Amino acid sequence: MVETNFTVSELYDAWPVLSHEERVEGFELLRRDDADQFFLQLSARDRAQLIMTLPAGERRLWLRLLAPDDAADVIQAVSPERREALLDVLDDMTRREVKGLLDYAEDEAGGLMNTRYSRLRPEMTVDEAISYLRRDARAREKTVYYAYVVDPTEHLLGVVSFRDLIVAPGDKRIEAVMRKEVISASEDLDQEALSRMFMRHHLLMMPVVDAEGRVKGVVSVNDIVDVVQEEATEDIQKIGGVATIEGPYLQVPLLQMIRRRAGWLAALFIGEMLTATAMGHFEKDIARAVVLALFVPLIISSGGNSGSQATTLVIRAMALGEVRLRDWCRVIRRELATGLGLGFILASIGLLRILVWEIFFDAYGQHSFLIGLTVALSLVGVVLWGCIAGSLLPFILRALGFDPASASAPFVATLVDVTGLVIYFSVASLVLRGTLL
Amino acid sequence: MVETNFTVSELYDAWPVLSHEERVEGFELLRRDDADQFFLQLSARDRAQLIMTLPAGERRLWLRLLAPDDAADVIQAVSPERREALLDVLDDMTRREVKGLLDYAEDEAGGLMNTRYSRLRPEMTVDEAISYLRRDARAREKTVYYAYVVDPTEHLLGVVSFRDLIVAPGDKRIEAVMRKEVISASEDLDQEALSRMFMRHHLLMMPVVDAEGRVKGVVSVNDIVDVVQEEATEDIQKIGGVATIEGPYLQVPLLQMIRRRAGWLAALFIGEMLTATAMGHFEKDIARAVVLALFVPLIISSGGNSGSQATTLVIRAMALGEVRLRDWCRVIRRELATGLGLGFILASIGLLRILVWEIFFDAYGQHSFLIGLTVALSLVGVVLWGCIAGSLLPFILRALGFDPASASAPFVATLVDVTGLVIYFSVASLVLRGTLL
Repeated sequence: MVETNFTVSELYDAWPVLSHEERVEGFELLRRDDADQFFLQLSARDRAQLIMTLPAGERRLWLRLLAPDDAADVIQAVSPERREALLDVLDDMTRREVKGLLDYAEDEAGGLMNTRYSRLRPEMTVDEAISYLRRDARAREKTVYYAYVVDPTEHLLGVVSFRDLIVAPGDKRIEAVMRKEVISASEDLDQEALSRMFMRHHLLMMPVVDAEGRVKGVVSVNDIVDVVQEEATEDIQKIGGVATIEGPYLQVPLLQMIRRRAGWLAALFIGEMLTATAMGHFEKDIARAVVLALFVPLIISSGGNSGSQATTLVIRAMALGEVRLRDWCRVIRRELATGLGLGFILASIGLLRILVWEIFFDAYGQHSFLIGLTVALSLVGVVLWGCIAGSLLPFILRALGFDPASASAPFVATLVDVTGLVIYFSVASLVLRGTLL
Repeated sequence: MVETNFTVSELYDAWPVLSHEERVEGFELLRRDDADQFFLQLSARDRAQLIMTLPAGERRLWLRLLAPDDAADVIQAVSPERREALLDVLDDMTRREVKGLLDYAEDEAGGLMNTRYSRLRPEMTVDEAISYLRRDARAREKTVYYAYVVDPTEHLLGVVSFRDLIVAPGDKRIEAVMRKEVISASEDLDQEALSRMFMRHHLLMMPVVDAEGRVKGVVSVNDIVDVVQEEATEDIQKIGGVATIEGPYLQVPLLQMIRRRAGWLAALFIGEMLTATAMGHFEKDIARAVVLALFVPLIISSGGNSGSQATTLVIRAMALGEVRLRDWCRVIRRELATGLGLGFILASIGLLRILVWEIFFDAYGQHSFLIGLTVALSLVGVVLWGCIAGSLLPFILRALGFDPASASAPFVATLVDVTGLVIYFSVASLVLRGTLL
């Protein structure tokens, strides 16, 4: 065998920037147990890519290294027509388990669970349980830290952690040691709700039960860390106005990257075209008082920025469960007060700026105070509207069954831009009638 | 004792919307063991608030319920002048541990670790280890799932999980069962890097060691879930252009909310004032061709939106470790290609829109094609510039030692607004010279 210069760590660090061929090459240069360790650190997508380029014999080897739920993730990551071939390399029992897991949606408890967990009976003693677990292959799964106490029909009676077993006296009965109030998840529980339960109760593992209370599998906190990270990435990308991009930034093919961003960008662009229509409506006013045009970017961007703040805060608060659908009225009241406060602050700065420029540069002619007033009043209106629209939109989206995070900052900015123009020119025609207009 | 209608769950759900007095009242109505369970579900901030309103005797009771690291978090959450009083209610040993923990920054490994972990010696047998752990109070800590094998001076030799102890033959020596390659963190490791190590190696627990390799404590994955969630919230708020808001949205006092948002908003507003200056510079062009003003919002917002996409993607990729400082050149090349692609897509839509409006509404007069060309060329330039500025900014911030997430979407939009105007009017004066201008 060729001596390798690679270490697991070096290969892991270089991975994101390696081509597909370099990856396979690097992987094959690892020593066998390094390769095992390395393979277990990869994401399901990377595992799938790697496995599919290996000869069928090796494919079997690597796929069998994985627990059923991890194997299911890998199979889900390859194209549908190649899944059967991968399922075929599994042994019968694992194949049945994996097939069962593939029926669940990826983002529900059932799709995250591991079907291999350790079962105990309530009448065992602690010492009996320990020697039973020593013989039970399922207890050897690295991700198992609890044994579930079940009746003969798999109904959940209680739970003992491996820690409980270690610290309890050996002759005590399991039913005296086990915790009877077990926090469990139903098979179709959404992964975001599941992660909130894990965080709230500081759990390491949670059993997944069917409608009859029978244990179907267990979800481990390690999967939950990934879920929390994934959900945050999804929300951040949505807030930034990008359709969710699957995979690391540098690895997404360029055309896919453009497609993922062009959709939203074009939609926003088409929405923003209404600003040209709105401006066209006020073309005569602009022709008469060109000075009005100068403040258009300032005013609409202030609305966009305050709206983007409001929507970001509300979306995150919803994701963390701090704000629920029925809190909309409290949120609006908060944003009303906040928007007024922020509007007055920006209006004062804006008015001051115009007056100072007038005094020193004679920039805006004899009606500069009226212009300043127009800008200031518009700012209060636009910022207030930005806060209200930005905070309401996530509620509306959620009420309609959409993801509130789709109320991205650019989406809110676009919405507020169009209405901001209408507010600005309406205020202008009120304040400047008879003087500039 | 008064019979209570509250359950832990009901109180927990109502908590965010209760006033401080209602919370204390609700908490005191819980049955004793429900109250224990409830208290452990609260955040450090809520625990601190609650504890400070209880009489001194009860304060001692509740604080002693917590592990030293959790107690340290509570003490950190109260005002500095009241910390001594809280430290005084602890027993001597815990007080020493808590004081040691308070010396670490909150966001480094040392600030997250629990000082109570179980130690074993390599020469013990598995059965001896189990019966030793049965007598060791530290093993009773709910958050301990590993025992660390150390030499007499606390140097780390290896690790065994409680699961390993259960499944290994009872007469095997610990040194034969333990894993010798232990992934450990140094005391001052940043919590973001720490959480990446947890995720990469699927760990439940990691020992924290000092410069000499002596174990100081352990960090549990449950703390890491909180860290991941916290860091994501911080990044999301920064991307949305809000200074980090500590505490749930509905509970932050209104004035603090306004202050936290006004800072960025005013800074952006002052930056955005440059647009008025830039527009003022082109005032004569606008007066001659008012039609130019109509497309100002459309063009600058397109730059802002594409910049916001780019900055969001790069910030998140950096946070996940997918993109490092030295990758800036690869990122720029990507954004150059992406920006050109996106620019051409928007330019085509924009040109089409202007020509269609011209044909059907005769909207822009005889030079409509030239106007369309101006808008289209400007869009390519502005979108390209948005992508480049948006993706470069996080790199520049990180290189200067700032948090890349400060390159918020509104910040990038403001930057691109000003330059976008310059691009637009420069293109206009090139294309329209001799006709409209």
